[in-house]
Amino acid sequence: MVNAGDMNGSGNLMDFLDEPFPDVGTYEDFHTIDWLREKSRDTDRHRKITSKSKESIWEFIKSLLDAWSGWVVMLLIGLLAGTLAGVIDLAVDWMTDLKEGVCLSAFWYSHEQCCWTSNETTFDDRDKCPQWQKWSELLVSQSEGASAYILNYFLYIIWALCFAFLAVSLVRVFAPYACGSGIPEIKTILSGFIIRGYLGKWTLLIKTVTLVLVVSSGLSLGKEGPLVHVACCCGNFFSSLFSKYSKNEGKRREVLSAAAAAGVSVAFGAPIGGVLFSLEEVSYYFPLKTLWRSFFAALVAAFTLRSINPFGNSRLVLFYVEYHTPWRRKTTRLGKYPVLEVIVITAITAIIAYPNPYTRRSTSELISELFNDCGALESSQLCDYINDPNMTRPVDDIPDRPAGPGVYSAMWQLALALVFKIVITIFTFGMKIPSGLFIPSMAVGAIAGRMVGIGVEQLAYHHHDWIIFRNWCRPGADCVTPGLYAMVGAAACLGGVTRMTVSLVVIMFELTGGLEYIVPLMAAAVTSKWVADAFGKEGIYEAHIHLNGYPFLDVKDEFTHRTLATDVMRPRRGEAPLSVLTQDSMTVEDVETLIKETDYNGFPVVVSRDSERLIGFAQRRELILAIKNARQRQDGVVSNSIVYFTEDPPEVPPNSPHPLKLRRILNLSPFTVTDHTPMETVVDIFRKLGLRQCLVTRSGRLLGIITKKDVLRHMAQMANQDPESIMFN
Amino acid sequence: MVNAGDMNGSGNLMDFLDEPFPDVGTYEDFHTIDWLREKSRDTDRHRKITSKSKESIWEFIKSLLDAWSGWVVMLLIGLLAGTLAGVIDLAVDWMTDLKEGVCLSAFWYSHEQCCWTSNETTFDDRDKCPQWQKWSELLVSQSEGASAYILNYFLYIIWALCFAFLAVSLVRVFAPYACGSGIPEIKTILSGFIIRGYLGKWTLLIKTVTLVLVVSSGLSLGKEGPLVHVACCCGNFFSSLFSKYSKNEGKRREVLSAAAAAGVSVAFGAPIGGVLFSLEEVSYYFPLKTLWRSFFAALVAAFTLRSINPFGNSRLVLFYVEYHTPWRRKTTRLGKYPVLEVIVITAITAIIAYPNPYTRRSTSELISELFNDCGALESSQLCDYINDPNMTRPVDDIPDRPAGPGVYSAMWQLALALVFKIVITIFTFGMKIPSGLFIPSMAVGAIAGRMVGIGVEQLAYHHHDWIIFRNWCRPGADCVTPGLYAMVGAAACLGGVTRMTVSLVVIMFELTGGLEYIVPLMAAAVTSKWVADAFGKEGIYEAHIHLNGYPFLDVKDEFTHRTLATDVMRPRRGEAPLSVLTQDSMTVEDVETLIKETDYNGFPVVVSRDSERLIGFAQRRELILAIKNARQRQDGVVSNSIVYFTEDPPEVPPNSPHPLKLRRILNLSPFTVTDHTPMETVVDIFRKLGLRQCLVTRSGRLLGIITKKDVLRHMAQMANQDPESIMFN
Repeated sequence: MVNAGDMNGSGNLMDFLDEPFPDVGTYEDFHTIDWLREKSRDTDRHRKITSKSKESIWEFIKSLLDAWSGWVVMLLIGLLAGTLAGVIDLAVDWMTDLKEGVCLSAFWYSHEQCCWTSNETTFDDRDKCPQWQKWSELLVSQSEGASAYILNYFLYIIWALCFAFLAVSLVRVFAPYACGSGIPEIKTILSGFIIRGYLGKWTLLIKTVTLVLVVSSGLSLGKEGPLVHVACCCGNFFSSLFSKYSKNEGKRREVLSAAAAAGVSVAFGAPIGGVLFSLEEVSYYFPLKTLWRSFFAALVAAFTLRSINPFGNSRLVLFYVEYHTPWRRKTTRLGKYPVLEVIVITAITAIIAYPNPYTRRSTSELISELFNDCGALESSQLCDYINDPNMTRPVDDIPDRPAGPGVYSAMWQLALALVFKIVITIFTFGMKIPSGLFIPSMAVGAIAGRMVGIGVEQLAYHHHDWIIFRNWCRPGADCVTPGLYAMVGAAACLGGVTRMTVSLVVIMFELTGGLEYIVPLMAAAVTSKWVADAFGKEGIYEAHIHLNGYPFLDVKDEFTHRTLATDVMRPRRGEAPLSVLTQDSMTVEDVETLIKETDYNGFPVVVSRDSERLIGFAQRRELILAIKNARQRQDGVVSNSIVYFTEDPPEVPPNSPHPLKLRRILNLSPFTVTDHTPMETVVDIFRKLGLRQCLVTRSGRLLGIITKKDVLRHMAQMANQDPESIMFN
Repeated sequence: MVNAGDMNGSGNLMDFLDEPFPDVGTYEDFHTIDWLREKSRDTDRHRKITSKSKESIWEFIKSLLDAWSGWVVMLLIGLLAGTLAGVIDLAVDWMTDLKEGVCLSAFWYSHEQCCWTSNETTFDDRDKCPQWQKWSELLVSQSEGASAYILNYFLYIIWALCFAFLAVSLVRVFAPYACGSGIPEIKTILSGFIIRGYLGKWTLLIKTVTLVLVVSSGLSLGKEGPLVHVACCCGNFFSSLFSKYSKNEGKRREVLSAAAAAGVSVAFGAPIGGVLFSLEEVSYYFPLKTLWRSFFAALVAAFTLRSINPFGNSRLVLFYVEYHTPWRRKTTRLGKYPVLEVIVITAITAIIAYPNPYTRRSTSELISELFNDCGALESSQLCDYINDPNMTRPVDDIPDRPAGPGVYSAMWQLALALVFKIVITIFTFGMKIPSGLFIPSMAVGAIAGRMVGIGVEQLAYHHHDWIIFRNWCRPGADCVTPGLYAMVGAAACLGGVTRMTVSLVVIMFELTGGLEYIVPLMAAAVTSKWVADAFGKEGIYEAHIHLNGYPFLDVKDEFTHRTLATDVMRPRRGEAPLSVLTQDSMTVEDVETLIKETDYNGFPVVVSRDSERLIGFAQRRELILAIKNARQRQDGVVSNSIVYFTEDPPEVPPNSPHPLKLRRILNLSPFTVTDHTPMETVVDIFRKLGLRQCLVTRSGRLLGIITKKDVLRHMAQMANQDPESIMFN
């Protein structure tokens, strides 16, 4: 126990080098962090604070602040994410309406707000509120007729193009990382990868602004995925204010997991769903402590959003939804001209969307209408049923009725909208603008579900005697609810795209309040997962990650091949031997040459080249810093000084150069496995402990090294081969 | 890669020994399983089936069946757990009413069912339905008056005592493991501990029967925790039907995690809450695959229960709740006489409970009444407000009103019920009968919450002008809902006892349908967790586990001390050296002596006693079996045969005895850490990889061993010491 202080390598490196070299312990861009090391650094920090806290009242207060800083960060994230979501909602509302007209009394009012302040109008006359003028009314004083329609159509397209152009330009110029939904990258970052700037302040600002623009432009995309990215940027920003989080990549990721939960919480108004989404879909390392913090952040965010109350109904945005729009495509010809691509897609979207009432309105309004059941007072075209004039029932219990002409025309329009949404969503998702997938895929599912629902309803009405209807559907009863079919369809479609299960169901019922439909929703989620898994195991986010080639070790992939560590480790047979350091026989120059000639992240240290018995592992970055530091400050360290990693370097003869003692930067507990360890176990260890590399030994002798990239490469290789060929070779 | 087949120790042991020794690969009672080993065995089995599946159609079908067997097991568990829960609900209903009277038309009808079949009665006259006779009516033909009251009181106590006596006797004689809630033990089992018989068929049968008896007896306990145990017994039973699960302790635990979810699903009618409860509270190893399966099992169980429809309202038991009752107590004098203890507690419960209307009825009915808001038509004593005779509002929007005499007397009775429930629950939880804690602690919270709610309501009514009320509570408005206070109180109390957060909120709103109250519920959960954590970090289940001394490595405990592996490993300084095997110099007799003289679970194998370079690890159980097998079957293996663990044993001279080659049982990839590894990392490794033991080396030389029990002992030691004393010694 006496040596505990001296030997815990990385922790004490901090004591030694912390001030002069502030970037010790950080990682290079596009590198992977070492979770175990981060964790042990945090424990050291914690211990130091605890021991100091006994020294004075001030230190004690500081230690209390430190202990509570996690909750404080969560509070701040919740507040900012909720505020941003509220502002985005208000801005989108206004700009979406701006495409059709303007409020004369105050141009910054949306259509609804404009007519609220007017007291001449009832709810039904909303469209005719005098303060609100369509562009045709304002410019040519015509509200009806072909020329007014064409002018409105034209200005709708112009506004959409302006918004889209502005958005894509802002993204290109100021924050290229602001494009897309961001969820695949956040998954990768949370798994321990470093992508500098991805969660930076510029990304936060530009993504917030452009998100408003693209959603308002009417493109087939959603704001929910990007909101998760925005919330994670908030999380990253607040992490940087507290040294506990800013200096530790592992702790920072705990904050980011919670921020993702807050993002979903405000995107859907679903705080529980947000926590589960972060757990099931996004996070990599999710201890119970993070679960509680996420819960708190999601709560604060939802509460803040409710206080802003962007929809004026005191609800947590029950139905104002949108998210990631899928499809993968990297090599289309149009893809090389991102601005042109956005303009073309926006133009096509606007031109096709305007004439069809189901595509002209915002997708979330469409979904909301599709989910609704038809009451007696409903004026929607979808509710144009033929009423029995003798009906005496109360208004809220309406039996199945035959469909009227409005329903039939709605069915046609819905069918066209379905095809349009499917096609345009595929092209929209890959564009260089913030875009989400939840709303478009829910819309596709909801349209299909509603159409099936209306079909079944009419079948049941006209064929009460069919076996499938006979037992549960008496004539005159209300046995089919098309709105429920739409809801289940939306859940199924979203489940198929993302492969969520538990979080999907929770989000759906937090969204719709349909707690009693939990069983059909769960059945839809399980079925869509089974069907989609039959086509391929990857959800959209994993597919995106693989497409981008991020080093992501998916917890869902099972590795069942019979290879051993020896088959994966480097060097392979015939390759040059492993670059190692010896504990007491290399000069500073030898070490510098080795560093210069290779680009490895670190080097194993062995007793001698003959025995090859492993004693530790030295990080490249720390070696460089330590040598630089020694050459600058320590007397007598020159190129042919001997580098010692041993505990007690021998006395040097008076004439030889001063030795360089580097035991302090040596990690004395490198992770090792034997060469016979099944790769299955190695994969498990990498996944669960978040390792960067692992050394391979046999009977204590160092044989090679396996890095996370070697593991990923091997897994990809194995997946491409026929399993049998591996088993028998 | 050529050697892959030969070298994967445990997998090939199976090929070799599977038939003659069916218990190879199993564990002793009260031992810990090795998760990595179980996982690797399952992969081997899977590979074998995959390779066989190409051989014939029949093998292909078998491999498909094997792949789907997980879902089939889930289906069966869901069906059985749902059915059992339905039967228990029906039986409890009947037997609870039996304490007060009997149905003349059919004695197996409960009060409600009895009066359903009667068409003379309206809902309000339920108590006066002629088929249902109180005992006093039946025996002495009196329904009112002091003698009838006393007779009913007396028979109520007698029935309660009979039920309780029968229950405790059944548990004592047939299934001692059926007592308590079972959740702490299930947590321990899921973490990898073996307790044989705990999930056996007898336990299943007896726990189901006695659960009905104790709940009917009116003791202050719930059925929810025991239902989780019952569901896990179902899971264990169905696991035993499929060799994939029965022969692999790791896979079996995946099934049990899902079964726990199904148990909560039927206990509360909360399928999502069940999955989250299993994740947050019960399970140890919970991969996403188990999440999906749990989800499916919970869905099937909820659906089955709904089909049985025990409450005749087509709902998933919205409010028929009960669970674990806490307190820990091992050494009271009464505790030595479990039957007497049960009788005494039951008698006290029955005697005190009968006169107070809030304790006489079942606890779940009480909670249900406390949660309800007072409508205009409500006849409950709690809703005896003084109505304004001029009130013209609709019946469902009632302003705050002054309390009437009924409310004041209800407040007194509730206060007494609160004290009684708190005290009696403490004594009930430790008894040797199935008992749960959820319902009693929710009842305590709901009573307190309702009382506070009524208090605030009356304050607000009488003091509209106080600052705290002025801004949000106008006179004549309905600003305080005492039922909501009760709901939040119940959540807070339950949260404080169990420290659940996310699963608590989900269960509460699945239970009550109160989706819009999600924010107050979340705030209550977070606050109660903070407050309770300030008193001690352990929830009731962890406390119970520690009390019973189970080797449970809690994922919630953080280990932040600065000790190293070398401080924990055995042998310690001054102890006898580690018992090791050498690879090529020990005789069969030496090995047998070593086995006889020690009781370790296994032995490290080293190159030689001098070099002490580690080559593998041999399990005690497998050594014994292999030697026994060799002595029985192989020619020439005698006591002084040399045991070889090497790959190519040397040729033996003709006169020496035949060697025993044991490389096949050698685990060539034992887990090692260096002596300098911080214990923090070691604890993490044990937790995340589910190890049983880990070897400690320095520069490839074996120094010692750390077992799971050493880790737990060390953690307990550190927790008892002042953190500073460790940091500076």
